[in-house]
Amino acid sequence: MAEHAGLFDGVFSRGAAATDGEAWLRAMLDAEAALARALERAGLAPAGAGAAVTAAASGTFDAGEIGRQAASTGNPVPGLVAALRKAVPAEAADTVHRGATSQDIIDTAAMLLARSALAALAADLAAAAGRCAGLAAAHRDTVMAGRTLLQQAVPVTFGLVAAGWLTSLDEAGETVARVRGERLAVQFGGAAGTLASLGADGPAVARLLAAELGLAVPVLPWHTDRSRILAVAAACAGASAALAKIARDVTLLAQSEVGEVREGGGPGGERRGGSSAMPHKQNPVAAIAVLGCTRRVPGLVATLIAAGEQEHQRAAGAWHAEWETFADLLRVTGSAASWGADLTGGLVVDPARMRANLAASHGLPLAERVSGLLAPALGRSAAHDLVARASADAAAVGGTLRESLLGEPELASRVHGAGITGAQIDAALDPAGYLGSAAAFTDAALDAHARRSLPAG
Amino acid sequence: MAEHAGLFDGVFSRGAAATDGEAWLRAMLDAEAALARALERAGLAPAGAGAAVTAAASGTFDAGEIGRQAASTGNPVPGLVAALRKAVPAEAADTVHRGATSQDIIDTAAMLLARSALAALAADLAAAAGRCAGLAAAHRDTVMAGRTLLQQAVPVTFGLVAAGWLTSLDEAGETVARVRGERLAVQFGGAAGTLASLGADGPAVARLLAAELGLAVPVLPWHTDRSRILAVAAACAGASAALAKIARDVTLLAQSEVGEVREGGGPGGERRGGSSAMPHKQNPVAAIAVLGCTRRVPGLVATLIAAGEQEHQRAAGAWHAEWETFADLLRVTGSAASWGADLTGGLVVDPARMRANLAASHGLPLAERVSGLLAPALGRSAAHDLVARASADAAAVGGTLRESLLGEPELASRVHGAGITGAQIDAALDPAGYLGSAAAFTDAALDAHARRSLPAG
Amino acid sequence: MAEHAGLFDGVFSRGAAATDGEAWLRAMLDAEAALARALERAGLAPAGAGAAVTAAASGTFDAGEIGRQAASTGNPVPGLVAALRKAVPAEAADTVHRGATSQDIIDTAAMLLARSALAALAADLAAAAGRCAGLAAAHRDTVMAGRTLLQQAVPVTFGLVAAGWLTSLDEAGETVARVRGERLAVQFGGAAGTLASLGADGPAVARLLAAELGLAVPVLPWHTDRSRILAVAAACAGASAALAKIARDVTLLAQSEVGEVREGGGPGGERRGGSSAMPHKQNPVAAIAVLGCTRRVPGLVATLIAAGEQEHQRAAGAWHAEWETFADLLRVTGSAASWGADLTGGLVVDPARMRANLAASHGLPLAERVSGLLAPALGRSAAHDLVARASADAAAVGGTLRESLLGEPELASRVHGAGITGAQIDAALDPAGYLGSAAAFTDAALDAHARRSLPAG
Amino acid sequence: MAEHAGLFDGVFSRGAAATDGEAWLRAMLDAEAALARALERAGLAPAGAGAAVTAAASGTFDAGEIGRQAASTGNPVPGLVAALRKAVPAEAADTVHRGATSQDIIDTAAMLLARSALAALAADLAAAAGRCAGLAAAHRDTVMAGRTLLQQAVPVTFGLVAAGWLTSLDEAGETVARVRGERLAVQFGGAAGTLASLGADGPAVARLLAAELGLAVPVLPWHTDRSRILAVAAACAGASAALAKIARDVTLLAQSEVGEVREGGGPGGERRGGSSAMPHKQNPVAAIAVLGCTRRVPGLVATLIAAGEQEHQRAAGAWHAEWETFADLLRVTGSAASWGADLTGGLVVDPARMRANLAASHGLPLAERVSGLLAPALGRSAAHDLVARASADAAAVGGTLRESLLGEPELASRVHGAGITGAQIDAALDPAGYLGSAAAFTDAALDAHARRSLPAG
Repeated sequence: MAEHAGLFDGVFSRGAAATDGEAWLRAMLDAEAALARALERAGLAPAGAGAAVTAAASGTFDAGEIGRQAASTGNPVPGLVAALRKAVPAEAADTVHRGATSQDIIDTAAMLLARSALAALAADLAAAAGRCAGLAAAHRDTVMAGRTLLQQAVPVTFGLVAAGWLTSLDEAGETVARVRGERLAVQFGGAAGTLASLGADGPAVARLLAAELGLAVPVLPWHTDRSRILAVAAACAGASAALAKIARDVTLLAQSEVGEVREGGGPGGERRGGSSAMPHKQNPVAAIAVLGCTRRVPGLVATLIAAGEQEHQRAAGAWHAEWETFADLLRVTGSAASWGADLTGGLVVDPARMRANLAASHGLPLAERVSGLLAPALGRSAAHDLVARASADAAAVGGTLRESLLGEPELASRVHGAGITGAQIDAALDPAGYLGSAAAFTDAALDAHARRSLPAG
Repeated sequence: MAEHAGLFDGVFSRGAAATDGEAWLRAMLDAEAALARALERAGLAPAGAGAAVTAAASGTFDAGEIGRQAASTGNPVPGLVAALRKAVPAEAADTVHRGATSQDIIDTAAMLLARSALAALAADLAAAAGRCAGLAAAHRDTVMAGRTLLQQAVPVTFGLVAAGWLTSLDEAGETVARVRGERLAVQFGGAAGTLASLGADGPAVARLLAAELGLAVPVLPWHTDRSRILAVAAACAGASAALAKIARDVTLLAQSEVGEVREGGGPGGERRGGSSAMPHKQNPVAAIAVLGCTRRVPGLVATLIAAGEQEHQRAAGAWHAEWETFADLLRVTGSAASWGADLTGGLVVDPARMRANLAASHGLPLAERVSGLLAPALGRSAAHDLVARASADAAAVGGTLRESLLGEPELASRVHGAGITGAQIDAALDPAGYLGSAAAFTDAALDAHARRSLPAG
Repeated sequence: MAEHAGLFDGVFSRGAAATDGEAWLRAMLDAEAALARALERAGLAPAGAGAAVTAAASGTFDAGEIGRQAASTGNPVPGLVAALRKAVPAEAADTVHRGATSQDIIDTAAMLLARSALAALAADLAAAAGRCAGLAAAHRDTVMAGRTLLQQAVPVTFGLVAAGWLTSLDEAGETVARVRGERLAVQFGGAAGTLASLGADGPAVARLLAAELGLAVPVLPWHTDRSRILAVAAACAGASAALAKIARDVTLLAQSEVGEVREGGGPGGERRGGSSAMPHKQNPVAAIAVLGCTRRVPGLVATLIAAGEQEHQRAAGAWHAEWETFADLLRVTGSAASWGADLTGGLVVDPARMRANLAASHGLPLAERVSGLLAPALGRSAAHDLVARASADAAAVGGTLRESLLGEPELASRVHGAGITGAQIDAALDPAGYLGSAAAFTDAALDAHARRSLPAG
Repeated sequence: MAEHAGLFDGVFSRGAAATDGEAWLRAMLDAEAALARALERAGLAPAGAGAAVTAAASGTFDAGEIGRQAASTGNPVPGLVAALRKAVPAEAADTVHRGATSQDIIDTAAMLLARSALAALAADLAAAAGRCAGLAAAHRDTVMAGRTLLQQAVPVTFGLVAAGWLTSLDEAGETVARVRGERLAVQFGGAAGTLASLGADGPAVARLLAAELGLAVPVLPWHTDRSRILAVAAACAGASAALAKIARDVTLLAQSEVGEVREGGGPGGERRGGSSAMPHKQNPVAAIAVLGCTRRVPGLVATLIAAGEQEHQRAAGAWHAEWETFADLLRVTGSAASWGADLTGGLVVDPARMRANLAASHGLPLAERVSGLLAPALGRSAAHDLVARASADAAAVGGTLRESLLGEPELASRVHGAGITGAQIDAALDPAGYLGSAAAFTDAALDAHARRSLPAG
């Protein structure tokens, strides 16, 4: 009954990450099979037992039935182990799950899910970053309004906006890659973390198991040290925040009244975002889907952090609360990244509209600059107040900052008294001349991106 | 890919609440069918269109396919509407979804899911409460150690403990019932909440739609007022907290070293809680499962609260983030309640162990009482300090409070100097005599429960 | 070191709610004083002890010193009790805190804080609602663009928008009032909930204590039943969501490119929202402050829900985690409401800009209506597709929907073939004619508001 | 009104981290002073302006007054800048805040707070780790019951438990140190991230500012890329989880009925944990305080993650929601670590009680081992079932596993039939012989700790 039967998959399960029940089941079976091979390599299982269990583990198991049995033990592993033992030749049955406890299998499976999901996540982040790099380069000098607190502030470039997206995606991707490379470790501790049933062979089997699965060997079994789960969660949170910022910007820039960007459709260019009721609608579906995913991340991560408080050698409830939560977090973060790659890839930018929107503010976003022009003569504070008054006048009558500065006699006389000419004011009111380090920052972001990409290329 | 394929259902999907993709699909189809009937009753659809759509809506639809189509529109309704239109006779096709927008269908479906899930939740809370009432009555005078901050404090009764569980379940159940009765309303607003495509007929259709579905009629379409979602979430949070407290107590009381209660097995008495590795294990599966569920509730509720900030006439992301979250919240809360009913029904109480554990503290939990006995003569503060010293001495040597009070000459002389005899000390050290209002409170809780239950009985 | 020393108070501590350390201290002292009076009334304290403790409790205590002592006991009450005992005449010293435990004092104080804070919250919600009612009435027929997913959808009225704000504020206020009236109860249970040190007098003292404080008497001491805390939290969450929706709308409507509303300044009309750097800036400070507050609510509530899982007769950590969290939640919700009352009171609406923004979409928001006009002749689906094509054409060239519908020969011939004239198209493109039930809904919301307000007025 | 006036400081503000309003104010002033010096070094301010501003910034400012002014601008910086300008000589006034915007100052101040708080956090984590290493070494061979799901499972050692605490503290500390070393960067972008008012000098001033403050230079201004905030939050979450696990274990091990550890008092050995009502109480105050702190972390982190979605060049609300939340997170995590260092330093371990508790389970925790002994002859599954039956019999009558295995004729005959003697059973029931790799794991953890500590030593 847990599954959503795919109804919302188009939004929340878009990524390549496999995190559903089938993927869990497969990962648990992979862990059991690897354990059998490790036991055989360690001389603790008959020759051929590893291959036999591996072969059986590749078969079909009834996840629903196993899930129902979980009600009597509190987790699905005993049911899975029973089914797997039935599926192997008699001589291999005792090798199945030997030395392990349920948590070993579920935690190791979680690491396998994370490895696959983080790979997909990193790839989508990299794809999105590459596209943002393209946007940053293409629009390095495309002037638009910078907006603080949702009000036009001073001019920026769209290249700088895209460079900001780029840098955050790159840094989020680095964290994802680091966590994937360093923090995913096998969990193998047996009943209470001592591997007692394997006598002195525990650590050797743990190393072989890790080698079979390609996971790291931890210093200690980590059954009640959930920092690996939290490291994955933090990587997802970082990726989610980077994607959410982009998507929020796109929904705002794509507003009917702003119109500076629009989504260009699906990966194949197909039209998207239609409404069943309103024939004209072109909703920014990708950005909305990103936000639908990322809004779920804080709550999911909070659950995992809270689950870090674990009792003794196995937690009563906190561990269980992680299972679906961890998978959901990987799923929605991966979906957000997949949508994000799509979104940045198809973004259509309208530089003319950007200029027009800036112009519609009648020079007010250059008020800071005009104030700076007057400051040497008037003092910074008096200059600020003079321009604030002119700005208020302009806003009140819908006129331009130029008109109120130079048209209102008292203000004009103070401007001229400061030795500033109308031509200087006109020059100051050119947005393209007040971009500061926008291009330099954009170049720096592109350089950093290129350096980051090298090792992978 | 969203579904967990049942693998963890035994733990998290135990309740009778149907909240999976199939249930969502069915609820959406119910909403569409009811709308068709309402339109017909309002004279806005051809005779028979309501029945035709209702008949078609009872058919089979491919949730997975609809879910995939959701990727192009951002939600599953357009795909569902297209499929439903195909399934009805041509003359009824225009009636399908008329006047509605996707959000009307999803939000109304969410209310239908909640109605069913809250009914199951209320029933399980009531069942658990009934069983707690039984425990409270049976153990009204069963003395046990009260424990504060996980240390033995003063004696209480198990009846009072169960009475506390009872009261919290009753109050949580009342809130669930109130929210279910008062806050579940149809959502029907059309494209942007004006029902413009229905001309002046919107409110009439909304009323008929509500009548068809048995939901309340809101003052206004509530598409961007999410207080109904939050009311359901708050009811779930309250139920979850009540259940979590019980389950936490049970895991603690069932500890090997405490052993005052144990779970008695499944509803049919079957043995439960075994371990694949450890033959002796009898884990308190129900309590653990409750905690596994309830630990997820804070994060899920936080997501829903955050989603209350919705833009204009339909939110870009916040609304979407609710879908799976709301269903998950109903599911895990319902599962916790189902486990809770099971847990309280099967609980085996060991009064002898309760007495023994109390006795093992060598009278220290009566220190407050002894202090009270000495206070009139010595003053409250001096009495406290004297008994604190005696307690520390007793703890240091593993002796009893009596021994250190009456055996250590200096302390004994101060006790006797206060006019207190050894017999009075002995009487004060009888836990059964220091229960204060435990029985009165237990009776009050049972009375309140009986009064609450009357209307339903 | 906990305090923020007021630095951020302007944003987060604007309401009348007193929730700081001084307020906590005062509430704890009020609880201790009321207990002394209750004990005296119950015959358990010498005559005059109640008045003596009450007098002493009105004195000055060093919260910082008490806070430092909390490190040795884990809570501030023992230090406070010691200080209070010193401050009373010797004969009243034993009356101080008699029968109580630290949790009784802190929990009861929390209820007193909540009572005051919820009153302020309800008042600010009511003030905001009253102002929204004014806006709804004044702008009942002010046409503006409805926006779904941040895209213009179909026309609505600003009156309907304000009616939506109104309804959600009214309903949130009702919940706040209900919780304040019904759920705030005294906590008085003694060491472990039995009031054993008071013998059989516990319930009588509890009732007198409740009467002294004007709080309800619970069925049982509620020390480990945190549903009252959660009820307050849920009321705050509901209020927060209502306020957040309004503030989000205002930030969006006030964008430079939208300009349909702006904040009118502080309560006295003073200019607000200036920037130290940018002389022209007029930031919507109140709306931003609301969002700054409300964004913190989900996390705070999640902490409180998680704290509902409490061990035995006093929780080790979960209870403690509530203290600052509960106060912060009351504070930021109250601040949001205060800002919200201010925001709605000063809002300046620009109907001309609303019309202009709608007109700038060249008729596209009426596409649904045009489609409805063509549907009878062409069928709903074909009509939808025709208008979708015309909309896309119009958007592509920046033309109007009318131009593409009637100017493009093929489309025009299909329109005319459907028996629809240009005049009919023109009429359909008048937004004021496509408002559906906007006015009716607005009136309904105003009626409901008036009915709600009666009892209070 | 925000401050808690120290009332709860003993619990929540124990660490050396300074995160209160005074610390914020100081950090903002440090940022302003450093900016003035950087401007002077860049040739953008008169000689001596840097020193003049630095001198003025070391003066006293009224945080409360600045906080009140924040109500008109939405943040405290404009008020602070105005006050600072007044405090400097006239010729330096224009240098104050030049090129900066409010967010530059607040975000940079947040980094300075984090630097100091993370240093304190790392030191306390290291102290706690050192003490855990001591415990692990001292108790490498101290046998105790391993407990899964709060039930005795198989034997472990307290050394291994402490080794697990050690490893998690070490890894958490590494993350804290890495984030502190790599992720704390100056924020300096001016009005909208272009540093336009500084012309082409922006990046140079940014580098000088970073150098003055000892912070890193980011690729780009990070005003709407909150990954640095989230990296700090994740480091706090990891530390919190490590500490919470330890504290939870201690509260459980210190239970009256378990008694395997107790807190040894404050740093100076002073008695702690007393109760005003119950003279015998010795509450594990440090562990409780840790949990009180760590339970708040998930909600605080969730708020920060949600705030990662920021609009355009400055967020309306999301940014503001971070301020107090970030400081609270640093504060409570730091307090938890300080308590944790104290807790681990003073822990008193009772090996005799550990052995006794294990013995009281009558051999059941060795059931897995006995089952392994019988498995070669009987098969793993039959051996498991036989021992499960014997375990159940033993539990039912309160006897030992040995008694039911060898005393019940049918079971005894199967045991003997498997070729297992009573002496072998006796040997199998010795807990000290079934510790598997406990010592090896403990040694590995100590080795890893020693290697980690080297660079710092």
